[in-house]
Amino acid sequence: MIYADNAATTKMSRAAIDAMTACMEQEYGNPSSLYALGQHAKETLERARAQVAAVIGAQPEEIYFTSGGSEADNQALRSAAEAGRKKGKTHIISTAFEHHAVLHTLKKLEAEGFDVTLLPVHTDGLVRVEELDAALRESTCLVSVMTANNEIGTIQPIAELGALCRARGVPFHTDAVQAVGHLPIDVEAQHIDLLSASAHKFHGPRGVGFLYARKGIRLTNLIEGGAQERGKRAGTENVAGIVGMAAALEASAAHMEETAARLVPLRDRLIAGLREIPHSALNGDADHRLPGNVNFCFEGIEGESLLLLLDDRGICASSGSACTSGSLDPSHVLLAIGRVHDVAHGSLRLTLGDDATAEDVDTIIQNVKEVVEYLRGFSPIWRDLQSGKKPFIL
Amino acid sequence: MIYADNAATTKMSRAAIDAMTACMEQEYGNPSSLYALGQHAKETLERARAQVAAVIGAQPEEIYFTSGGSEADNQALRSAAEAGRKKGKTHIISTAFEHHAVLHTLKKLEAEGFDVTLLPVHTDGLVRVEELDAALRESTCLVSVMTANNEIGTIQPIAELGALCRARGVPFHTDAVQAVGHLPIDVEAQHIDLLSASAHKFHGPRGVGFLYARKGIRLTNLIEGGAQERGKRAGTENVAGIVGMAAALEASAAHMEETAARLVPLRDRLIAGLREIPHSALNGDADHRLPGNVNFCFEGIEGESLLLLLDDRGICASSGSACTSGSLDPSHVLLAIGRVHDVAHGSLRLTLGDDATAEDVDTIIQNVKEVVEYLRGFSPIWRDLQSGKKPFIL
Repeated sequence: MIYADNAATTKMSRAAIDAMTACMEQEYGNPSSLYALGQHAKETLERARAQVAAVIGAQPEEIYFTSGGSEADNQALRSAAEAGRKKGKTHIISTAFEHHAVLHTLKKLEAEGFDVTLLPVHTDGLVRVEELDAALRESTCLVSVMTANNEIGTIQPIAELGALCRARGVPFHTDAVQAVGHLPIDVEAQHIDLLSASAHKFHGPRGVGFLYARKGIRLTNLIEGGAQERGKRAGTENVAGIVGMAAALEASAAHMEETAARLVPLRDRLIAGLREIPHSALNGDADHRLPGNVNFCFEGIEGESLLLLLDDRGICASSGSACTSGSLDPSHVLLAIGRVHDVAHGSLRLTLGDDATAEDVDTIIQNVKEVVEYLRGFSPIWRDLQSGKKPFIL
Repeated sequence: MIYADNAATTKMSRAAIDAMTACMEQEYGNPSSLYALGQHAKETLERARAQVAAVIGAQPEEIYFTSGGSEADNQALRSAAEAGRKKGKTHIISTAFEHHAVLHTLKKLEAEGFDVTLLPVHTDGLVRVEELDAALRESTCLVSVMTANNEIGTIQPIAELGALCRARGVPFHTDAVQAVGHLPIDVEAQHIDLLSASAHKFHGPRGVGFLYARKGIRLTNLIEGGAQERGKRAGTENVAGIVGMAAALEASAAHMEETAARLVPLRDRLIAGLREIPHSALNGDADHRLPGNVNFCFEGIEGESLLLLLDDRGICASSGSACTSGSLDPSHVLLAIGRVHDVAHGSLRLTLGDDATAEDVDTIIQNVKEVVEYLRGFSPIWRDLQSGKKPFIL
């Protein structure tokens, strides 16, 4: 089996599993307890916080552990919005292709009276710094732009966007769920005020993530209760999960450069192979993209059938975000980069794991070619395209 | 070491750790993914949901997995409040000794215009059904009463309270974090509409819990994003954690009666032993309490010193909720049952584990006796009490 859906979730690393298991067996003290067993758990927790902070250039006290990336996104946006409202600032800028954890929260905030501007992401899947510049208002209380898109993998000019926000005095949030552990992040150099991350995207456990909030940023609680996480996130700390996340992140960060150096040629080999399929197109910029991300549209086919047939052949892939499967609507990300509905429906996301090989890539190319050809063989849309009844778009 | 702080958190069971580890190693598919690996994870997830539902007499589709009890409490209250507001009903009834996950959420709701009535819990730590009856209004949109208190362990007349709410058409929520896995729960027989639970209180992992919501109850999302959990709780499902929770709950439920039958005499032996200490008192009713819970006040001493000295002697205990440690205020629970500040400060909570023995209990009694006597030896308050400068309360 070739698992090529690492943007959906990754297989946990041995180091992360072992760290968690050891913790579950031995570190059962509650970190809020006075006795030594609890205090030891507290030290373990704080060591993990320091490990996580170090990877993104933050201070440990700027890291708030959450149940995952979605919670971190929700809390980041809510916090900046409430802080803004207190100052009479109710304008928020984001982009059209954010994760739903951001977009749906923005929808809720709009219903509560906030004014939301979504920047376009153009056909290359990239935000333009000058367009953010033009969109900023006196009343802007938050800019939220994801570091790397979860479907098409395009990497945004975060440092430039961050610098602009800093210069204009506007808090800058980035959903870095797809980036942390895969791309170098430095909250200082990139002028990031709020950042969301999720452990299971870098071989850590699910149900754990973190929110980075720069000192001075006032967080609003999403979950009220106990005084954990400096009073900003209630609930007994998931020490084992957090330790697993820290172990996975440290390992990913340590090998980040070599992993990327290995994956980029494989990604480009995959892109080149799939480009040989007629009437196909890569989605998003070919260079400014995550090392393992490939996302294609194939005209005249249904993405879902493609996935099921690839699964039969032992290849795990997706058509877009796993979070929206079950929906019949085409991906909002593909629509945001200008793909029309028909084309967006025939999309395929392949996200390589750290251990992917050239053989894997060649197997994927061969199988995708065969399956696309097979599906087009009885696709009515493809027949219309072939006969000239409908014009080709790709 | 004797770990007697099982209300704070429990040691994970071997079965739960093994179930989780196997899941982390093998079930890495995203349950929202189409391919077989994802669908297998989905089946595993749904099997766990059915296991959990069965233990409380619910339907699987009435179980929503959360990151823990605090999140479940927050979501339950927010949901009922928003549904109430839509009908013009903004009165909420709860009790003075709920967990802070409930009380702090109520405080926030009050700031948003809700009217909150907190029922008294009397010196026995029990709510009176007739007092709930008297407090109910036409405008009441929610009643929230915890099944068993986390500090003093008193068990509320949930079935009666639930029946009253049902008769008056008011949704009934219970924070059953301390009860699930320890007491029989039947959402039908007890007329419960919303129920919160946390895995790490019954030997499951931390960072996982669930919210039961009766069919027809409309939930409000706390975390927006993907369509997981029937669209009511975004975020990639923590399959391993959920499987660990289900394994732990099934094991706890299977041995619930025999565990209680073993613990109750041990608890009563501990209570009898501690009662021999002069000027001490049990907090909460002696009979309507959790099988493993003992909570005492000792006049003239500081709870914190007591805990530290017991820790030196290898006994892990707490003065109240672990979630509020760090706070210098006396427990709101002890104040709610009428303990004055001075007395409430000298409290000790001992919560026995399933594997506690009579020897453990005798060791605890002996050590608490010695430590209380030692501390009173140089306590200025004790001196004042002894000399008659201050009257004894206990």
